[in-house]
Amino acid sequence: MIQLYFAPGACSFVPHVALEAAQAEFEPKLVKLHRGEHRAPEYLALNPNAQVPVLVVDGKPLTQIVAICDYLDRRFPQAGLLPAESWQRAQAMSQLAWMNNTPHPTMTRVFFSDRYAESEAARKDVKQRAAQEFRGYLERVQAMVAGAQPYWFGNRLSFHDAYAFTLLRWGGYAGIDPDAFPAYKAYVERVMQAEPVKAAMARERIAFDTYKG
Amino acid sequence: MIQLYFAPGACSFVPHVALEAAQAEFEPKLVKLHRGEHRAPEYLALNPNAQVPVLVVDGKPLTQIVAICDYLDRRFPQAGLLPAESWQRAQAMSQLAWMNNTPHPTMTRVFFSDRYAESEAARKDVKQRAAQEFRGYLERVQAMVAGAQPYWFGNRLSFHDAYAFTLLRWGGYAGIDPDAFPAYKAYVERVMQAEPVKAAMARERIAFDTYKG
Repeated sequence: MIQLYFAPGACSFVPHVALEAAQAEFEPKLVKLHRGEHRAPEYLALNPNAQVPVLVVDGKPLTQIVAICDYLDRRFPQAGLLPAESWQRAQAMSQLAWMNNTPHPTMTRVFFSDRYAESEAARKDVKQRAAQEFRGYLERVQAMVAGAQPYWFGNRLSFHDAYAFTLLRWGGYAGIDPDAFPAYKAYVERVMQAEPVKAAMARERIAFDTYKG
Repeated sequence: MIQLYFAPGACSFVPHVALEAAQAEFEPKLVKLHRGEHRAPEYLALNPNAQVPVLVVDGKPLTQIVAICDYLDRRFPQAGLLPAESWQRAQAMSQLAWMNNTPHPTMTRVFFSDRYAESEAARKDVKQRAAQEFRGYLERVQAMVAGAQPYWFGNRLSFHDAYAFTLLRWGGYAGIDPDAFPAYKAYVERVMQAEPVKAAMARERIAFDTYKG
């Protein structure tokens, strides 16, 4: 019995798409961040970091995107979520870890600048600096997906596609026009045509429409 | 043929200790950060993030601590670096990912506050806020290691021990007295008695002496 705690458009989209791609049976559990449900005692018992995603397997919680991806890959080997060959798998884990510890937390500085400084002026400074840094990371992702045919790992949809989609979508919130990254945007448009991505987007009720000119 | 690019006291200490614990043959490659060697073109070819560690296997680079740990565990299964049972291994990966994407980058804000804001006042604000947040994470690690006998996973030394050592040692640079975390400090003192840790500390020429009262 698998449950996925997710919030719409958050990085929980990564395991959400993967569960769909693996055709896994799971119970989606919506966490309403705007209502502070992630700070409720019962949620903190699952994840003291007050974050999504949490994967609950037979009543036991697993946190951290990279650990959840590694677990899902090993649990659903027939889905081929990560390359099977040892060195290619290591490189895939490295890419996931990088998205998780470099562009992702840079966007956290944009979303939650109040966690990074006390004064309003400093928060504004932090946010501007982070948005600028984030553009550089989107360039890096664009270089990574430039040759994707059609997906990151070829014909198999994976975590990486969902994470790359999420990062470019988040960029819109920071005022970054996805049209500035044409190869990346074309790739994301292909990814959005995949059935597992369509299913996860529909359940989360999200669209690729965060950039408001 | 394995090479490890490391800098003294950096998070490259994690795979450094693991290679020693696995009794692996490897060539240690010192990267002099103060001389900017991590920004030289030949280093950026190995790691465009200009960071340590890089594990080079038969001439091919692997970056990202979590990916390197996963690879080393699978390459040296006899060392038992991570628990073999699937769910325990997933939890171990989660703990590693958390140390890597939560306390670790919080300390990055202390070390390199200039990357987070432009103005001097904002940088000072960022640094203070990060040091305060880091204390909370050391509390969390202390709770995790309170029952360690003697190490994180019992008798087997692992990545986690080296990472926990590194985080408490870094705290000293932020003016955090390790004596404020007595159970954590006692655990780190046990870890420092392990031969692989002694060997890595000697090669890196580091001591547990960063706090200057």
